Amino acid sequence: MKNSDIEEILRACSRGELPIEKAAQRIKNLSFEDIGYARVDHARADRQGFPEVILGQGKTPEQICGIFEKLIARSPNVLVTRTTAEVYGQIRNIHTEAEWHEAPGLIRVLRDKTELGTGEIAVVTAGTSDIPVAEEAALTAETMGNRVKRIWDAGVAGVHRILAERELLQNSRVVIVAAGMEGALPSVVGGLVKVPVIAVPTSIGYGASLGGIAALLGMLNSCASNVTVVNIDNGFGAGFVASLINRRSDA
Amino acid sequence: MKNSDIEEILRACSRGELPIEKAAQRIKNLSFEDIGYARVDHARADRQGFPEVILGQGKTPEQICGIFEKLIARSPNVLVTRTTAEVYGQIRNIHTEAEWHEAPGLIRVLRDKTELGTGEIAVVTAGTSDIPVAEEAALTAETMGNRVKRIWDAGVAGVHRILAERELLQNSRVVIVAAGMEGALPSVVGGLVKVPVIAVPTSIGYGASLGGIAALLGMLNSCASNVTVVNIDNGFGAGFVASLINRRSDA
Amino acid sequence: MKNSDIEEILRACSRGELPIEKAAQRIKNLSFEDIGYARVDHARADRQGFPEVILGQGKTPEQICGIFEKLIARSPNVLVTRTTAEVYGQIRNIHTEAEWHEAPGLIRVLRDKTELGTGEIAVVTAGTSDIPVAEEAALTAETMGNRVKRIWDAGVAGVHRILAERELLQNSRVVIVAAGMEGALPSVVGGLVKVPVIAVPTSIGYGASLGGIAALLGMLNSCASNVTVVNIDNGFGAGFVASLINRRSDA
Amino acid sequence: MKNSDIEEILRACSRGELPIEKAAQRIKNLSFEDIGYARVDHARADRQGFPEVILGQGKTPEQICGIFEKLIARSPNVLVTRTTAEVYGQIRNIHTEAEWHEAPGLIRVLRDKTELGTGEIAVVTAGTSDIPVAEEAALTAETMGNRVKRIWDAGVAGVHRILAERELLQNSRVVIVAAGMEGALPSVVGGLVKVPVIAVPTSIGYGASLGGIAALLGMLNSCASNVTVVNIDNGFGAGFVASLINRRSDA
Amino acid sequence: MKNSDIEEILRACSRGELPIEKAAQRIKNLSFEDIGYARVDHARADRQGFPEVILGQGKTPEQICGIFEKLIARSPNVLVTRTTAEVYGQIRNIHTEAEWHEAPGLIRVLRDKTELGTGEIAVVTAGTSDIPVAEEAALTAETMGNRVKRIWDAGVAGVHRILAERELLQNSRVVIVAAGMEGALPSVVGGLVKVPVIAVPTSIGYGASLGGIAALLGMLNSCASNVTVVNIDNGFGAGFVASLINRRSDA
Amino acid sequence: MKNSDIEEILRACSRGELPIEKAAQRIKNLSFEDIGYARVDHARADRQGFPEVILGQGKTPEQICGIFEKLIARSPNVLVTRTTAEVYGQIRNIHTEAEWHEAPGLIRVLRDKTELGTGEIAVVTAGTSDIPVAEEAALTAETMGNRVKRIWDAGVAGVHRILAERELLQNSRVVIVAAGMEGALPSVVGGLVKVPVIAVPTSIGYGASLGGIAALLGMLNSCASNVTVVNIDNGFGAGFVASLINRRSDA
Amino acid sequence: MKNSDIEEILRACSRGELPIEKAAQRIKNLSFEDIGYARVDHARADRQGFPEVILGQGKTPEQICGIFEKLIARSPNVLVTRTTAEVYGQIRNIHTEAEWHEAPGLIRVLRDKTELGTGEIAVVTAGTSDIPVAEEAALTAETMGNRVKRIWDAGVAGVHRILAERELLQNSRVVIVAAGMEGALPSVVGGLVKVPVIAVPTSIGYGASLGGIAALLGMLNSCASNVTVVNIDNGFGAGFVASLINRRSDA
Amino acid sequence: MKNSDIEEILRACSRGELPIEKAAQRIKNLSFEDIGYARVDHARADRQGFPEVILGQGKTPEQICGIFEKLIARSPNVLVTRTTAEVYGQIRNIHTEAEWHEAPGLIRVLRDKTELGTGEIAVVTAGTSDIPVAEEAALTAETMGNRVKRIWDAGVAGVHRILAERELLQNSRVVIVAAGMEGALPSVVGGLVKVPVIAVPTSIGYGASLGGIAALLGMLNSCASNVTVVNIDNGFGAGFVASLINRRSDA
Repeated sequence: MKNSDIEEILRACSRGELPIEKAAQRIKNLSFEDIGYARVDHARADRQGFPEVILGQGKTPEQICGIFEKLIARSPNVLVTRTTAEVYGQIRNIHTEAEWHEAPGLIRVLRDKTELGTGEIAVVTAGTSDIPVAEEAALTAETMGNRVKRIWDAGVAGVHRILAERELLQNSRVVIVAAGMEGALPSVVGGLVKVPVIAVPTSIGYGASLGGIAALLGMLNSCASNVTVVNIDNGFGAGFVASLINRRSDA
Repeated sequence: MKNSDIEEILRACSRGELPIEKAAQRIKNLSFEDIGYARVDHARADRQGFPEVILGQGKTPEQICGIFEKLIARSPNVLVTRTTAEVYGQIRNIHTEAEWHEAPGLIRVLRDKTELGTGEIAVVTAGTSDIPVAEEAALTAETMGNRVKRIWDAGVAGVHRILAERELLQNSRVVIVAAGMEGALPSVVGGLVKVPVIAVPTSIGYGASLGGIAALLGMLNSCASNVTVVNIDNGFGAGFVASLINRRSDA
Repeated sequence: MKNSDIEEILRACSRGELPIEKAAQRIKNLSFEDIGYARVDHARADRQGFPEVILGQGKTPEQICGIFEKLIARSPNVLVTRTTAEVYGQIRNIHTEAEWHEAPGLIRVLRDKTELGTGEIAVVTAGTSDIPVAEEAALTAETMGNRVKRIWDAGVAGVHRILAERELLQNSRVVIVAAGMEGALPSVVGGLVKVPVIAVPTSIGYGASLGGIAALLGMLNSCASNVTVVNIDNGFGAGFVASLINRRSDA
Repeated sequence: MKNSDIEEILRACSRGELPIEKAAQRIKNLSFEDIGYARVDHARADRQGFPEVILGQGKTPEQICGIFEKLIARSPNVLVTRTTAEVYGQIRNIHTEAEWHEAPGLIRVLRDKTELGTGEIAVVTAGTSDIPVAEEAALTAETMGNRVKRIWDAGVAGVHRILAERELLQNSRVVIVAAGMEGALPSVVGGLVKVPVIAVPTSIGYGASLGGIAALLGMLNSCASNVTVVNIDNGFGAGFVASLINRRSDA
Repeated sequence: MKNSDIEEILRACSRGELPIEKAAQRIKNLSFEDIGYARVDHARADRQGFPEVILGQGKTPEQICGIFEKLIARSPNVLVTRTTAEVYGQIRNIHTEAEWHEAPGLIRVLRDKTELGTGEIAVVTAGTSDIPVAEEAALTAETMGNRVKRIWDAGVAGVHRILAERELLQNSRVVIVAAGMEGALPSVVGGLVKVPVIAVPTSIGYGASLGGIAALLGMLNSCASNVTVVNIDNGFGAGFVASLINRRSDA
Repeated sequence: MKNSDIEEILRACSRGELPIEKAAQRIKNLSFEDIGYARVDHARADRQGFPEVILGQGKTPEQICGIFEKLIARSPNVLVTRTTAEVYGQIRNIHTEAEWHEAPGLIRVLRDKTELGTGEIAVVTAGTSDIPVAEEAALTAETMGNRVKRIWDAGVAGVHRILAERELLQNSRVVIVAAGMEGALPSVVGGLVKVPVIAVPTSIGYGASLGGIAALLGMLNSCASNVTVVNIDNGFGAGFVASLINRRSDA
Repeated sequence: MKNSDIEEILRACSRGELPIEKAAQRIKNLSFEDIGYARVDHARADRQGFPEVILGQGKTPEQICGIFEKLIARSPNVLVTRTTAEVYGQIRNIHTEAEWHEAPGLIRVLRDKTELGTGEIAVVTAGTSDIPVAEEAALTAETMGNRVKRIWDAGVAGVHRILAERELLQNSRVVIVAAGMEGALPSVVGGLVKVPVIAVPTSIGYGASLGGIAALLGMLNSCASNVTVVNIDNGFGAGFVASLINRRSDA
Repeated sequence: MKNSDIEEILRACSRGELPIEKAAQRIKNLSFEDIGYARVDHARADRQGFPEVILGQGKTPEQICGIFEKLIARSPNVLVTRTTAEVYGQIRNIHTEAEWHEAPGLIRVLRDKTELGTGEIAVVTAGTSDIPVAEEAALTAETMGNRVKRIWDAGVAGVHRILAERELLQNSRVVIVAAGMEGALPSVVGGLVKVPVIAVPTSIGYGASLGGIAALLGMLNSCASNVTVVNIDNGFGAGFVASLINRRSDA
């Protein structure tokens, strides 16, 4: 973020040519910090309601730590997704409050625990193997200020298992469903509730599951009208959107 | 829906063995009407917040009219999607208030116009050719009690066109973005707002657009965390979910 | 079928060098009739339990009629699948007992109505649009000597609709489930019954349904262990295999 | 499984308001045991004729052992598929009767050897490399109470090899065929017998075999009408369905 | 073809600097006739053993006739493939000896019937619907100077039908097999003969046949080592290569 | 384009707070005209060097004419691609100078013929059927002020045909190559010249050409390093980029 | 191979009921040796002109050695393809004449070097990385009695490299071309020669080469009519078919 | 390169039958050096403006070193792409000036640093993970005599980051954009500049990114007309073409 840009805005503002809230908006939209290999987007918390999250995959440990330091300096809560215990070791040296979540391979700092949601978010899995993805969603939603209920292993081949949780589902503000293989559970859940259902296809399965493509296609073709879909294994995205849906209008 | 099922519930209820709200819930979940070629799901309005919508595609005109008659008898508002002017002619004979919307091929009866939303829904298209899909979304959302703002032809190849609408987007409770070809617009919009973005890939394009698959994949891989996706050309689904997100908690 | 082949077998048999049942088996396996553009396989009824069925698609009306005449001369029941009303007109001139079934585009002669099954076959559809495929399955099974129960429009987005038929399903010897879009119904049905479930993906849907591929993949990845799958829209194959499963051991 | 649910059913039953067999059915359908990461479905043996099988893939060793302990406490026979020798080591510590089958990577406890089938099940492979998948099918079928005949390496490039087994095939109640590469063997076998053929595509092959997709497509398009298909490498599913087809009506 | 190029070669030749056969070779390789929308390749007969064939698909009738006139002026035999009866009408006005073959949509002029092959070419189809593609192959081979034997409708679901022709197949110099659906026939034929088998996948089938892709993949993965493959429905290519294989070394 | 935006810029400019060239730049980037179903991007000529082109496909004739009127009012040259003779009829009523190009389905107004290029652009096709796509490229390049040389039907199966044009190719500033089927020609051309080659896959072919996907993949994998690729049949894009490459630095 | 089968044939033959050459043919077709995990097909040498080759991939070292022992006992030449140096170690203990070829991972015993071909076979690669596949083809062809010429690294991006070998190619009886990436070389070679060209796509490349699918599709769509295709990386198949094409009629 | 070819040309030249520049051209086009496993194409520098680059992938270290030695003997600058630190160790032994670039896995010798371009080349990435591919492009362009500006991590989810660089982009002669996931950045950049944009899809992403296919399809369908595309992760190709576009006409 170049000084000249801010100064220009401030000068115009101080001369009264630019209303204060408009000036604030402009600065917000322009704001990022260039650290060479990354442009850390500090404005994102304001624009999107949560600071930039570090997608660990494809970055070197040094890059992850460098971005982490910039974010933690300004934001109480930080997430690193799709990363390794080795990176966690380095992060802990920087910041001792960081937690390690093995199943989803996720590092979290959670200092601000203010509740920001209007209701609860239910996170459901079809099978035991889908738990890592669902945990990424649940941890994201909790980090963003939501109460979360977990329902694991309730797939459609024993449909009474999900029916047993009908009441709990119907009392949620939004439901996340993670499922691999045929990905049928979101359709069944979608038919039981009148809130949005976010379907997360997982790469669980083999053969014609095509690494989650079968589940993805199934969810996109859901006959339940209240289902939307995110990328395969994208628990983070599901937790993020669920948080936005659940957010109190004053938050 | 078999009488015996209801009677069993009612008897248990009258004997005090089943609390009233539980009995009501059960009846709600069980309720549908079997008309041979279809099981009209009257319970859906209660379970999902809107009566069953008729997907015209793949049904004979006789089937569409038969289902329509069952729905209109109980519900003030009814939609038929993906249908033809010919079917509209037959529907009009049944019900004179039915409207015909040429671009999306949609029939609508809109008798109850109560506003049910907390804010506004913005519907955006990347190009002129995406309008029919976006109109399906907008009409659905309006029929479900929402105020809708339309922004047509604001694709990323002239990014100033969408930036010019930033304020309007940022004041919406949820944004729907319909785009074909590379499907890049939802990512840009997603980065501008802090509300959920529902991306609708359209089948607009040629060659390597693969009938909308390119746009679909692009949207699923969006680098903006607040984007979820529905099926190609599924304007109805996008409008439906946007309505649920926008719904007032007392509606 | 060349005379010399049969004669060779018969001579060996009459000399006592070939046991009678072995000679019969050989003749059965060799037997077909060459009519130029087709080798009509009269042995199939013996080998497979039903005479060769004519797949109308890709054949000229003349070819269909030519093969039909060969089959009807030897077999009480004959099916022509994936054909047109125009071909039916020509077939009726040959054989007045032929029936026309509009939805699946199927011609049938049903002179032998002996019941050959041990139990009943249930045929289920997820939606109204799947009925043509399901009817092809049901008609095939009836033609092969089975009692069939039809359950239309019981898809998973209103799961109570299929649960209402649980008893009927559990009393069947085999269940056929036709579904398009996400193809989730076979998994749910599979979890309810302890008999084989034959899943028929249909080409109903649009966009990412990819002409039935989404449903097909979903069914192949079913988490219910008792589900097997046939080709997209292959109602005939499903009805055929269901008949073999249901066949009395003395039939 | 919540106590309250059972109690409700039992009270209604004891008051004579619910017939005994209906109460039993309900309990059966509701029954599962929640152990946190899994809902062990004890009702499945009743509903589907075999206790829940543990798909090892995607589960941690601890999860597999935890589920195994729950199942073995109630069921004489248990299978763990797609697992490793390392997991077997841990299972043996829990239960000494567990057997290890190297080729398919399968753990089995077989205490109840009652024969439940009406006839025999033939399991055929196209090549030597398909044996692991076929063994999974054969072991599953044997564990479920069936007599099994194995025919290995009888692919179509030397069609006399399968013709030599024609009699054996024709005397079976159901035939399982595992084949990779072009997956042509099920069609040939299907044309030889009048019983159901369950085709299992295997991931054997390279290049355009696409990890078994070529074989899968070939089998789905089989010109033999008695062929149904399961997922790539899904020997377990094939053995399971074959057992259901072969099951005596009184079993 | 520019005069200067030929003159240069000829001058060098006449000066003795270029051996005669080398000069001839060069002229042969350079030779084509530019008629604006096409460069008619007269050298191809010398280089490839048959004059350029006109692929009708994608060309206007005027273009087809223009190229035809150039070819017929120099070559006794000419083929136009993938064309229509309408184009045939125009070609007949140019050249009265032209024949029309309805099934493959092929125009042929056959003035030179010299036999050029060492043996016979067998052309086999799996089904009746594959005949048009197979006829394109057979007509091409005959036009290029070969004796052809046709075997129609001998698919693997009745494997005795192809076994009945074993002797005929084993006496051929090369075998062409056209098959749609699962495309299994070339593997079976390949295992019966010791000559090259050219497999032609056809677009016959539906659903998961994917317009011939299933058959194509099956053939590419054939377990018979003597099978090579051409494009879907490319009967012409199969007939062309078979002719080259069968060609007498002095032809 | 909102007046307030321009005014704000102008005021800041007149007060000397914003340098003139910066103000001009901003206005340029913001400028578009909202006509309801389209935002006509008049700024594009400045930003991209050519006015917005109308992609006819997917638009109604009324929409095309409406956008055309806006463009022609400001720009000497206008293109409408992928349109029909019927639309041309309507456009001619608006503007009599409009030309119709049948092969590519293209309408053009060419009033400004200033030459803007540094050299020549060569446009090459592999076959006669690729000409419509290549003409779209050539007409686009000519409309944008370039000299164009056309080389039709020079595919690799007769490689001497393209070698004969080597000199012409090597004297061009950029080469466009349109090819369907295997799409091999760009690699060969790429190896002959030291300028950029823009490869346009065409949808010419059948079967495994997959509507141009085979050619597209071939071109993307070109072993010649100077090849870039545009969408299937996208002659316009190729002509556009070639023009930018060839543009004089002062144009 | 069951004794009873042979005896039956022999008795019929000795009684004069079966001509000697017919008896021989039958025995030949029936002949294989069942060693449990494999049915070693000794008849293949007679039926196909070369003994069964062992595809190492997917077999355990024990299985490879077991099959090898059966083959080497009867056949002078044996090939094991797609295997490892470790397996070679074990094979050498069985048979000291076995050679190891590192690049293709191939074991060979070559005791009979009789020349069986009418001409020479040319094997060409597009790049250096394609050599392992091409070597598999060349070694197979040599083992089957052919003279082979190798031309490595003559891809189309430098088309003069292949043109320099034109004479050599035109003097071959058949040409094998191995190419990855865009797979264009077979089309160019096909246009230069009048003999069959066998194209072998290789998995060389990255990104959109899709593991050889791009090259495969390119070759299937070749505009040269004399090109047929085998599976990706299937050098063995190419060498095998080339040998059959080149075989002397008396061999 | 055979002596006879050169001599022939030279003799014709010395006799005055071949103009000197034509003789030079011929020699240039024919020139390569055959070292067994590779035909090192020394003519490429003349034909294409840069010596042959060694694609390390798929070659043995020995092959890479062998080719390197041939190139370095004649060319001041040499690149080896997609290679390893281990190969670099061997190359350094041959040539001490070789540099190692870790991120892209690239070896470079840069002895001639003459500037050859008319302007600057901008290289942009959407994310930090795309840097290795972009570095390959930037290093290639620098090695070919261009000035390069790097803009890292400016993806569309924070569109202000790329807008902040608008001026820099608009002053470049050509822009390279590397992006994974949805691949939307090239469209946005394309709309901002009036120079060619070369889009490089990267394999960064997961799930439905399909190893870069999603980004590739997005870029091919770009709604910006000035975008062309190279293979996934092909930074080298992008840098190469950008250099050709930027090259001074006298270079």
